[in-house]
Amino acid sequence: MRPLTPDALNPAILNVQYAVRGELAIRAEQLRDKLKDPSNTLPFDKVISSNIGNPQQKGLDQKPITFFRQVAALTEWPALADLAPGVFPPDVVARAKELIQEIGSIGAYSHSQGIPFIRQHVAQFIEERDGFPSDPANIFLTAGASAGVSLLISMLITGPTDGILIPIPQYPLYTATLAQYNGAPIPYYLDEASGWSTSVESIESAVQEAVAKGIKPKALVIINPGNPTGALLDESTQERLVKLCEEHSIVLLADEVYQANLHHRDTHPFTSFKKVVSKLRSPIPLISFHSTSKGVTGECGRRGGYFECTNISEQVLALIYKMVSVGLCPPVSGQIGVDSMVRPPKAGDPSYDLWKQETDATHAVLASRTSIMAERLNALPGVSCVNSPGALYLYPQIIIPPKAQEAARKLGKEPDAFYALQLLDKTGICVVPGSGFGQKAGEWHYRLTCLCPGVEEYVNKLEQFHLDFVATYGA
Amino acid sequence: MRPLTPDALNPAILNVQYAVRGELAIRAEQLRDKLKDPSNTLPFDKVISSNIGNPQQKGLDQKPITFFRQVAALTEWPALADLAPGVFPPDVVARAKELIQEIGSIGAYSHSQGIPFIRQHVAQFIEERDGFPSDPANIFLTAGASAGVSLLISMLITGPTDGILIPIPQYPLYTATLAQYNGAPIPYYLDEASGWSTSVESIESAVQEAVAKGIKPKALVIINPGNPTGALLDESTQERLVKLCEEHSIVLLADEVYQANLHHRDTHPFTSFKKVVSKLRSPIPLISFHSTSKGVTGECGRRGGYFECTNISEQVLALIYKMVSVGLCPPVSGQIGVDSMVRPPKAGDPSYDLWKQETDATHAVLASRTSIMAERLNALPGVSCVNSPGALYLYPQIIIPPKAQEAARKLGKEPDAFYALQLLDKTGICVVPGSGFGQKAGEWHYRLTCLCPGVEEYVNKLEQFHLDFVATYGA
Repeated sequence: MRPLTPDALNPAILNVQYAVRGELAIRAEQLRDKLKDPSNTLPFDKVISSNIGNPQQKGLDQKPITFFRQVAALTEWPALADLAPGVFPPDVVARAKELIQEIGSIGAYSHSQGIPFIRQHVAQFIEERDGFPSDPANIFLTAGASAGVSLLISMLITGPTDGILIPIPQYPLYTATLAQYNGAPIPYYLDEASGWSTSVESIESAVQEAVAKGIKPKALVIINPGNPTGALLDESTQERLVKLCEEHSIVLLADEVYQANLHHRDTHPFTSFKKVVSKLRSPIPLISFHSTSKGVTGECGRRGGYFECTNISEQVLALIYKMVSVGLCPPVSGQIGVDSMVRPPKAGDPSYDLWKQETDATHAVLASRTSIMAERLNALPGVSCVNSPGALYLYPQIIIPPKAQEAARKLGKEPDAFYALQLLDKTGICVVPGSGFGQKAGEWHYRLTCLCPGVEEYVNKLEQFHLDFVATYGA
Repeated sequence: MRPLTPDALNPAILNVQYAVRGELAIRAEQLRDKLKDPSNTLPFDKVISSNIGNPQQKGLDQKPITFFRQVAALTEWPALADLAPGVFPPDVVARAKELIQEIGSIGAYSHSQGIPFIRQHVAQFIEERDGFPSDPANIFLTAGASAGVSLLISMLITGPTDGILIPIPQYPLYTATLAQYNGAPIPYYLDEASGWSTSVESIESAVQEAVAKGIKPKALVIINPGNPTGALLDESTQERLVKLCEEHSIVLLADEVYQANLHHRDTHPFTSFKKVVSKLRSPIPLISFHSTSKGVTGECGRRGGYFECTNISEQVLALIYKMVSVGLCPPVSGQIGVDSMVRPPKAGDPSYDLWKQETDATHAVLASRTSIMAERLNALPGVSCVNSPGALYLYPQIIIPPKAQEAARKLGKEPDAFYALQLLDKTGICVVPGSGFGQKAGEWHYRLTCLCPGVEEYVNKLEQFHLDFVATYGA
């Protein structure tokens, strides 16, 4: 018997990289365990996970929305409505009853594409958001947005000459999934100097370069609001991007999971690509992703999400259906989460006031924390930080002194990974180095979430660490 | 702009087939919609989904276990313990409290491999079941067993010269996933005449044939108890299968999701492959799958499951971890479902009596229904049916008269699909034709679940249909 070794496995697997839960996150878990030992000598008393947009994680302060959890509890055990009279608001009781009537039991497999009744509500939500029609037949409920993205990439990529245009920096799900399916990432660079804006010209030249190398660009990934950048696209750029897809027959994959995370709605509103494509009556195939994990919902563990297909033929829809049917169905509690997200309480409903109060508070704290952190980081020597108008992150650029770069290389680390590891070891704060998201050669960044309470103390730690780092390695 | 057409997609996708939710199931949904129209002229008043092992589906009668749903509801909205005092039994309150203390919020992403606390309980469950040690570090919680199977196949298969030994008949997840990853199915035939037994010799010759064709057998799939057959392996056959894997350096993929569905525990007990491998001290790499979807739990929509790795190196475990981390984490409510499955109430606990009563009733009804259905089917002319000792299915063989075969071919259908379509159209009963699971050339079967209440009326319909069919097409 030969043991199973990595070289016997699909080599594509070895190429997959996913920094958000990579070396730093694994080390953070080890340190968290170490802290439990009362004789530990670590220079901090808690590990703060700023590596992942996980708003309800222990130690962070985004509370679940009560309405969500009431609906969830009552669909889990419908008898509660009678056993605990008066405990659930009447709109929650009605909602749960209606859902159970449609679904039967939360313990049954649903329609593989998602419960039709819930898909109707998703379509209504999209219509109200955009002012254009949406068809439940074009909507697939998923286990979070990631499951949908991974499925679509697996269907689009045939081999190494098929490519997908990926923003740099990007959320590494895209490169990880492309590596798994042997596709070619075609990078295009976002412009930090103009607030991480998307340049249609740079995408156009990335297309040309890819084609010249014999790589066929099959899809364009746009993350809006951006991850890790938090940038928001304006509608005229979106129109030009749609035209570009039209010209090159490219599928648009619109990752819009942060659409509800807007810090300045008046100056930086969100416009969906579905709306732009509908307005232009463009024929481009568009897949738009949304999720229960982000926004003020923050229900990551529930694994709820959906994608909407626009300009996708019946034949291709049937193939997508076939592929999701092999996995049977998305988690029903995630589907119910999607329903609660797209059908929140309305003014006048018994649950409305609490819902409004909870969601307003979350929006306000994220906006204020993001501004404070960006401002304080910007004031540091060798650090510049775009104050992002959306999403949950900041992506500061740091100048890493040559001596520190040298020290990093000696350890076989990227300089930004070296910085992030030291930050973790000295402060307990876990961030993700920019090399996990991509950056221009010779530049260094890290991504941190804006989810940690006690922002003053938190930024003080970041500051003190950075100043010590510069003092140790020179400017 | 060229529209997106199937020929622009990964051709492997086109080859994927999954009959359990295929043509028959889609047609059943259409008929269900038609029934809603009061002026319909269909010859039945309900569609009965016997195509899929979905015990809590509308119209079927497997009730959820109260303990499961109480724990689920209380972890969704922990405030309920105080808001509805006395409604939850004290052991449920304690269990939910303990889980929430570990997890934090059900709305947070968990450890990608699954909540460590729950993996400890899975390991304890396995130790108690087998009498051999189990390590939580070797256990991965998953979104149902399918997600784990698909992941492992994607890691094992590099291309068309990598093969996996698949039983015929099989659950089509295996061939579907192999098609998706361009791997070669290496079929081996189960023996219907001896109750769908597994022949080590037939696997050995399948290995030889594959190797002769230049195909490398990387893994052996065993489904025990069988799907669709319901057959159970005896320990001596299991020992010989382990030796075969040892000899050929083959990974054993043990699909054991029906381990709790045993109709005659005394004569047909379940032995896990983990136990056999441990007892033999065999070095073979073994992955064992389990799920919350089957057994008396039947919580399919929850998407809970796990796989245990035995004799898998740290390096390979790290690669599996990396791959699951890209998908972030399995649904937390599914993970809590796994916890309830592996830690049911014990004698003396407040919830025990109800749990015992509910699970005993489910076991009894499944066993009796399976026997009645097998006996009645067996009595029909041209039908023979193994009375399966496990799982949720029967897989009767039907003789299809030459005239019916001819009629089927004219419609471009397999004869068994033709039979199943007529059965659906005339009775509203939806089964899956044997061609979806595999069968010897010239033989015809269908799979039906033993989940439908009103077994007498149900079997009467099957009988009447079959007799009419034979009368129409000759014997």
